[in-house]
Amino acid sequence: MSRLALRIAYDGTHFAGWQIQPRERTVQGSLEAALAKVCKQRIRVHGAGRTDSGAHALGQTAHCDIPQDKIGVPWRRAFNALLPADVCVISAHWEDDSFHARYSAKSKIYSYTLWTASEYVIPQRRPYVWPTGPLDIEAMQRVARVLLGRRDFAAMQNAGTPVANTVRSVESIRHCRGSREEEVVWYISADGFLKQMARIMVGCLVQAGRHRLEAEQMETILDSGDRSRAPATAPAKGLCLERVLYRESGDRDGWG
Amino acid sequence: MSRLALRIAYDGTHFAGWQIQPRERTVQGSLEAALAKVCKQRIRVHGAGRTDSGAHALGQTAHCDIPQDKIGVPWRRAFNALLPADVCVISAHWEDDSFHARYSAKSKIYSYTLWTASEYVIPQRRPYVWPTGPLDIEAMQRVARVLLGRRDFAAMQNAGTPVANTVRSVESIRHCRGSREEEVVWYISADGFLKQMARIMVGCLVQAGRHRLEAEQMETILDSGDRSRAPATAPAKGLCLERVLYRESGDRDGWG
Repeated sequence: MSRLALRIAYDGTHFAGWQIQPRERTVQGSLEAALAKVCKQRIRVHGAGRTDSGAHALGQTAHCDIPQDKIGVPWRRAFNALLPADVCVISAHWEDDSFHARYSAKSKIYSYTLWTASEYVIPQRRPYVWPTGPLDIEAMQRVARVLLGRRDFAAMQNAGTPVANTVRSVESIRHCRGSREEEVVWYISADGFLKQMARIMVGCLVQAGRHRLEAEQMETILDSGDRSRAPATAPAKGLCLERVLYRESGDRDGWG
Repeated sequence: MSRLALRIAYDGTHFAGWQIQPRERTVQGSLEAALAKVCKQRIRVHGAGRTDSGAHALGQTAHCDIPQDKIGVPWRRAFNALLPADVCVISAHWEDDSFHARYSAKSKIYSYTLWTASEYVIPQRRPYVWPTGPLDIEAMQRVARVLLGRRDFAAMQNAGTPVANTVRSVESIRHCRGSREEEVVWYISADGFLKQMARIMVGCLVQAGRHRLEAEQMETILDSGDRSRAPATAPAKGLCLERVLYRESGDRDGWG
C-alpha cells in the first residue's frame, strides 16, 4: 500500500457534509465510490476534518492507502473523471506512511463570506454567502481580537457534542473585500476547530457588526464556557475550508 | 406611465437566454411575469441587448413603463421578492421618456472567463468559465490588438443572422487575473456587438493563446468578412454582460 494525499475542492450545496453516512450524499462517500471503481475494493478516505452539510471547501485534504498494483494510476485524472461535478481533486501526491491528513495537520484556515448589500444578492453568489446587510467592520474587529489566542472555546461549540479538551489556539482572524464590493470575507486560522466553532465565531462577529455584541460581552461569554450565551450559528453556506497546513512534508512539496 | 430603468444580474445557466420565447424560461419572461403580478397587466421589458442561452449578466440594463397608480411601489424590493433565485434587480430608478435601454446605450462591456488549469475545474466556478488549459497571454494580446478599433466585423457574427451594418467600434480588450489564480478574465468593450461577436472574438483569442492563430491571419479573416474562416465560437457559460454605459443621464445618477 502507498499513501496518497489529496487536495479537494467541493461545492457543499448538495452534499450532506463531508462524512460518509448511510443513504446520504457525502463528499467522503463520493471519493470512496470513485476509489472503489478503480481498485475494485473498498478503501477508506481519511479527511483532515469534517465539514458541515452545505459548507464548501477549496482546500480540504485527505489521504488513502492505494494497493501496489494501482500506484501507476494517474490518480488526479482518475478521480476527476469519476467524481460528480460538484467535487474535484486539485492535486494528488504520495506521502510516507507517517503522514495522516487529520493528525499531521498543524492548522486550518476557514473563510466566511458575508454579503453586506441589503436589497439584493447576485444570483451567482447566493450559494456562497450569508446576506447580513451592512455591518460595522471596526466593531467586528474589536470582538475578533477577543477571540484570538489560546483559550477554552467551550462556549463556541455546537451543543450536544462534548469533547474532552476544548482549548484551541486561534492564530488569526482577518478580513478583506471579496470578489465583489458587496462582500466581506473573514479568514479564521486555528490549530483546530470544535464542531461549528468557525460558524459560531462568525455569528458573534456579525452580531458585533450590528452593534448587538461588545468586546466585553464576548469576553464574558467565552469565560462562561456556555454555548447558550453565544449568538446563533452562522449558516453553513458562507463557510469554506480554504486550506489545511502541515509541518514539513505537506507544505514543502506536493500540495501545490 | 413613468419609465423605470433597471440594472439586472442573472445566472444564465438555466435560462434560454434573455429574449422572451414561447415555452422557454427566459430572463425577460421572468421580469415581465413579476411586473404582471404587481400591475395586473402585461408590460413590456426592453433590454439593452439579448444575451445567449447560458450566458450570464452582472450589469444587464432594461426599461419598462409603469402605470401611474404603481409608481409608489418599491420596485427593486418588489422585483426581488417575485423573481426566481437566478435573477435579481441590483438597482431601479426613474428615467425620462427619452431614455431607452437599448437605443440610449453608448457602449457595452462583456467579460469572458477562461480556466487555464488542465486537470481540474473548481466546482464553484464550473458554470462561469471555459476550461481551456494553459494559454500564451502575449500571443493573445497580439491578436487582441488586431481586433481593436472601428472596422467591419462581418467575419465575427453568427452565420445566418445578417444585419445591414456590421461596422462596430471595439474600444478596449484587456485581461486580468480572475477571482482565482487559474482564471484569466478578458474584458471587451464596444459600441455594439453583433450576434455572438464577443464569443467569436474569444474563440479567436484562445486559438491565438494555443499558437494556432497569428495576428496576420486574424487580419486576413477580418478583411474577408467570412465567418467560416474564423475559429469556433467560445461557449456561452464563460460570457458575462458586465455593464452597459449610457450618455449623461444613465451614468450620472441612478445606476449606482
